[in-house]
Amino acid sequence: MDTRAIGVFDSGLGGLTAVKQLHRLAPQENVVFFGDTARVPYGTRPAQTIVRYALEDLSFLLTFDIKLIIAACGTVSSTLPRRYTEALPVPFVDVIGPTARAAAAATANGKIGVLGTPATIRSGSFVRELESIDSRLAVTAQACPLFVPLVENGYTARDCEVTRLVAREYLEPLMQAGVDTIILGCTHYPIIKGVIADIVGEKVTLIDSGRETARYALELLNKSDSCGGEGKLDFYTSDQGDGFENSAELFLGYSLGAGARKADLQRIDLHPCFGLAGGNP
Amino acid sequence: MDTRAIGVFDSGLGGLTAVKQLHRLAPQENVVFFGDTARVPYGTRPAQTIVRYALEDLSFLLTFDIKLIIAACGTVSSTLPRRYTEALPVPFVDVIGPTARAAAAATANGKIGVLGTPATIRSGSFVRELESIDSRLAVTAQACPLFVPLVENGYTARDCEVTRLVAREYLEPLMQAGVDTIILGCTHYPIIKGVIADIVGEKVTLIDSGRETARYALELLNKSDSCGGEGKLDFYTSDQGDGFENSAELFLGYSLGAGARKADLQRIDLHPCFGLAGGNP
Repeated sequence: MDTRAIGVFDSGLGGLTAVKQLHRLAPQENVVFFGDTARVPYGTRPAQTIVRYALEDLSFLLTFDIKLIIAACGTVSSTLPRRYTEALPVPFVDVIGPTARAAAAATANGKIGVLGTPATIRSGSFVRELESIDSRLAVTAQACPLFVPLVENGYTARDCEVTRLVAREYLEPLMQAGVDTIILGCTHYPIIKGVIADIVGEKVTLIDSGRETARYALELLNKSDSCGGEGKLDFYTSDQGDGFENSAELFLGYSLGAGARKADLQRIDLHPCFGLAGGNP
Repeated sequence: MDTRAIGVFDSGLGGLTAVKQLHRLAPQENVVFFGDTARVPYGTRPAQTIVRYALEDLSFLLTFDIKLIIAACGTVSSTLPRRYTEALPVPFVDVIGPTARAAAAATANGKIGVLGTPATIRSGSFVRELESIDSRLAVTAQACPLFVPLVENGYTARDCEVTRLVAREYLEPLMQAGVDTIILGCTHYPIIKGVIADIVGEKVTLIDSGRETARYALELLNKSDSCGGEGKLDFYTSDQGDGFENSAELFLGYSLGAGARKADLQRIDLHPCFGLAGGNP
């Protein structure tokens, strides 16, 4: 038994969809969540900027007593070079592997669609992972630059005409390709699952990357007999967290009754494991 | 004559609309532009985060030999407390005053609309300024949270259905109020002027905040006989500036033929004029 917390981070609050799943499947686990709300979104930024931000996020989580880190962010998972995640002093789980495996298991016709931020799609991460699982899979990837701003600004209702119009544009190539399974490769996207489902129809399976990743992380902890805790949830954001409760409710699906504390990333030193003396990557 | 540069900054690249105007009206002026592309957008963030970012932006510009600073950003102009701008060692011009005066001069029926980011509208900056110019003005203000993401992601064509739909939603209250003049209170908005004009009709005057502010800054310099320079334009962004040329062309309206240099705001010390020993405001 290991009662240290699971550390979860995301560019914004989308990663709370992974926290929701962790807490549902293993309510005893302690979780420290960090959302970089002061710099969201990541997915439309250059890779170098994303890497710099991710190393700071990881360094912040490493100031806590944690047993595992989840990057609940498709953009970070797709962009952060393995040399950094392999240097971490605790196990690291990103969304790519667990989500790709769930999609490969779910498809009947071998045609899979991937929705992600521009940085995620540009990286080719999901396509590579799916092809390594089964080279016969036909994958259609589509960048969705407006989905995060739409979700962050509350354009989330199932009948929201703006979001429907944007989603139709993004989903068109996937429908043309005849996919029967779609990876929601960004933890914001499950919030507009209803809009997406209405366009693609009930027969297409939607794979929630936050959910699959949380499930896989718990499997890992179970295998090494490292589960346990007091069910304590701690939330940190990089701006002062006004309105956090409302946004958190959107992603968690229930009222939290507690705010987020402010993480000061301003002057944080990069963790020594990255071998970078406080400088830029 | 004073050949030092004019410093211009913005949360992203929207402020280039002010640089465009500066260069058109006074091609001899040297300009140093800084766009905080690694943290754009500001307008949907809490005030405290915006102030912190703005002080870092100002501190960066103050590392150059400049004679005047323009905040070519409606959000910063609306959010930064006067005690900081009054502490600056050089004159400071923001978009609020020049833009409000131009709108007050343009209206015939006394009904003015203001479009801005959520932070700008929440601050009440334009409404207060307009009322101080003429208390009989009737002002209708509307936050437009999706305009910056739409522009930054290229949804700028005059016939773009998504942008038209979003713009119709934002403009409806202004049309209901019968405004004959609309302040484009964010330097990104002139890029979708065509979409806005198509909805509100030709009889409504659109006031471009970047243009009015550039014009006013040059008036100030003229008055104090501080014009002059070699027409040198220097561009800095906070991420590595890939794709800067394409984006710059969108805002400047012409090809630049030069990239942007990277400004490292990571470890910048706040300028001593702010009286803050490197800490947070």
